[in-house]
Amino acid sequence: MPSQFDPASGTRDFLAAEFERREQAFGAIRAVFQRYGFEPLQTPAFERLDVLLGKYGDEGDKLVFKILRRGEHEASGEADLALRYDMTVPLARVAAAYGSQLSWPYKRYAMGPVWRADRPGKGRFREFVQCDLDTLGSTSPLADAEVLCAHHDAMTEVGIGGFTVALNSRHVLAGLLEAYKISPELGTGVLTSLDKLDKLAPADVTAELAERGLARELAGELVEVISAPDAADRIRAALKPSEEGLAGLDEVDAVLELAGAQLPAGRVVFTPSLVRGLSYYTGPIWEVRAPGAAGSLGGGGRYDHLIEALGGPDVPAVGSSIGVERILSLLPDAAAGDRGRLDVGVTILGGEQAAGEQAAGELAAQSFALAAAARAAGLRASVYLGSSGKISKQLRWASDQGARWCLIYGAREREAGLVKVRDMVSREEADVAPAEVTDYLSRAAARA
Amino acid sequence: MPSQFDPASGTRDFLAAEFERREQAFGAIRAVFQRYGFEPLQTPAFERLDVLLGKYGDEGDKLVFKILRRGEHEASGEADLALRYDMTVPLARVAAAYGSQLSWPYKRYAMGPVWRADRPGKGRFREFVQCDLDTLGSTSPLADAEVLCAHHDAMTEVGIGGFTVALNSRHVLAGLLEAYKISPELGTGVLTSLDKLDKLAPADVTAELAERGLARELAGELVEVISAPDAADRIRAALKPSEEGLAGLDEVDAVLELAGAQLPAGRVVFTPSLVRGLSYYTGPIWEVRAPGAAGSLGGGGRYDHLIEALGGPDVPAVGSSIGVERILSLLPDAAAGDRGRLDVGVTILGGEQAAGEQAAGELAAQSFALAAAARAAGLRASVYLGSSGKISKQLRWASDQGARWCLIYGAREREAGLVKVRDMVSREEADVAPAEVTDYLSRAAARA
Repeated sequence: MPSQFDPASGTRDFLAAEFERREQAFGAIRAVFQRYGFEPLQTPAFERLDVLLGKYGDEGDKLVFKILRRGEHEASGEADLALRYDMTVPLARVAAAYGSQLSWPYKRYAMGPVWRADRPGKGRFREFVQCDLDTLGSTSPLADAEVLCAHHDAMTEVGIGGFTVALNSRHVLAGLLEAYKISPELGTGVLTSLDKLDKLAPADVTAELAERGLARELAGELVEVISAPDAADRIRAALKPSEEGLAGLDEVDAVLELAGAQLPAGRVVFTPSLVRGLSYYTGPIWEVRAPGAAGSLGGGGRYDHLIEALGGPDVPAVGSSIGVERILSLLPDAAAGDRGRLDVGVTILGGEQAAGEQAAGELAAQSFALAAAARAAGLRASVYLGSSGKISKQLRWASDQGARWCLIYGAREREAGLVKVRDMVSREEADVAPAEVTDYLSRAAARA
Repeated sequence: MPSQFDPASGTRDFLAAEFERREQAFGAIRAVFQRYGFEPLQTPAFERLDVLLGKYGDEGDKLVFKILRRGEHEASGEADLALRYDMTVPLARVAAAYGSQLSWPYKRYAMGPVWRADRPGKGRFREFVQCDLDTLGSTSPLADAEVLCAHHDAMTEVGIGGFTVALNSRHVLAGLLEAYKISPELGTGVLTSLDKLDKLAPADVTAELAERGLARELAGELVEVISAPDAADRIRAALKPSEEGLAGLDEVDAVLELAGAQLPAGRVVFTPSLVRGLSYYTGPIWEVRAPGAAGSLGGGGRYDHLIEALGGPDVPAVGSSIGVERILSLLPDAAAGDRGRLDVGVTILGGEQAAGEQAAGELAAQSFALAAAARAAGLRASVYLGSSGKISKQLRWASDQGARWCLIYGAREREAGLVKVRDMVSREEADVAPAEVTDYLSRAAARA
């Protein structure tokens, strides 16, 4: 039941364990992008409305969160700004704004939240992280293969295995239409239907193609050849009469050769049925698929005219989008990796003593300093801030915080000039001089 | 001159060098918070409008970015969501929503953008990072001192030195009003005027106090005692008749004792003239000041009733806000720390050879694999993606990318079965077998 304290519909609060789980994955991805020489780019959460609107089609425009004008203009009910809907439109703006300041070809990654006013549902959010890497300004298949390999390595680094990368080219698809003598008017619709082969049964796709006006026999043959186990070979044969189709095969082969030499055998698979819905792709396209994961885990391709269409300069481009939210849902949950908040808990004793307020204050001050001594050993440490003076409760607290050690300093320890260091795992206790605590814990941590 | 490609007014694009400079500072701060056992919290960019409005006063409400309703409701011109204005209202909501799931006292930090529709100006943005750490659920001065010390250490870790932390208590100020027999009706105004002592001349503050209705002699005495070099001692004497004032001094002394034992001598200074405008503080207050920096670099204090007032549970609280944007403006600029995009650049040669397309393709594939070999050594590496086949241009590119090494693989190297590894600093070149490149670069990087 939603409560007044829930975050807004479709958004999430990330408490510590989940936040850290996500940051760890983001950090792993970032490290891979860096190793490939992609540079980070961060753009604002909102853009001027005219920068965003008209770029995502009518359906997309409806999903843009618009920001009301302010001050005297608020009453107009008009918007002048809008929340970032993806990372590509800001990229086009940045490429136009900073053109000569950037190093070209411009290889950049962007990772951050985007906002879409979609109907929230299981795994579908209104605020979610998008993670893109793109190379602008190169037509080389090296750029395509580099983006694909970086995407691949990021998946691996995060801890995803057993996935494949389906690879195709828009030119292969165009060649296929040509080879099968399908008219350009029917072409787009045919591709849209073929794109459903990963979800629908071949017979259903054939029926849909027939509805679109394709001769039923031709439809059946097309579906059969494209979804057969030996589709790759059959398509290669079928494309012989199409120049564009052969050029598409060359693209596919170039990426297969470059990426194949680097990635595990069989990881990248020529998949003639791969269409990828987005209309702006112009060359190689790919999609990451994992058994058991519904839908794709991301993908990308070459989109040579999009940046200009989005208001940027006329530059060739290739990019990939990593489905980080999807990937995060496949990784072990937060509890599994939670290492707790603290390495060292420090007791605050003396409250129960009749020794007077001043003595208690001095004990507390010494304990406070002991936490600093533990931090000086590079450990996460904190004094007990609760209200109980009982050592049993304070040890429980340290244990709940995940602390491996507890420093105990009460009236007795003070008299002896020592600190009790308790190993919360072995339950062994050692008496240590306050000045030695940093060294002692450093050594203990090195052994642990 | 603003261009159509600029980011929206008051927001910024962060290109690579600046992004990394910022992330480095954020990372340093995060590491300190973690060492103190503060846990991260991330809340959505927007909240329901009713969660935010009415929490910041009329002036604050005007600065909230409101999000237009969507779909059929868009035409109403009404808003139902609003961008995060600070980190405290979301904290109150989270404390209410997840109360028992949190470990209490709840020590959390939050670092991320907030949005305010302020008039943009030098150093004043509409999207800027706020960085807060707070402890909810503890009344102990240990909690106050811990927050203050963590704030202090974060400043140091980021690389800020030579700052001081001005410390006072709201009870000291209340006691002062009591000791000087200033009526509660005048009190708030008097404190507002005294708060200006860091900007205005004492005579101007005295005049302002007189205008507020304070006897001119009393006003002069108050300003004199509070801004004198020996203010701390004189206030201690002046507060003797006020119970609340003495309690305030005890608070100040407790924090001074706890923090003083940990921080460099003289770092935390009892400063009776410190008021800090925000009305919600209820105990110790502090502010970070650095010579040369206009205004404060952050600050905080105890605010025991605010969380409840903001819609959260009734818990005591203490917190500090680190002025990260201010601090970033004091740190060396991005260019100084930029280590370039790459450690290793890899040439793509063969285009100028008459050896044919296939041979060029094989050279490129081998070069592509060499970049992977360099990454396997933990280095940032990329092939050349530009269009020039000239080695001089490609070496220039590698140098521009900050690469320390360039791997050269052309027809000659291929024939010899070797890769040329050029040290871009010493200009020395070594011939290395392709299979040895990872090891060779690992060793070279260890020496570099």
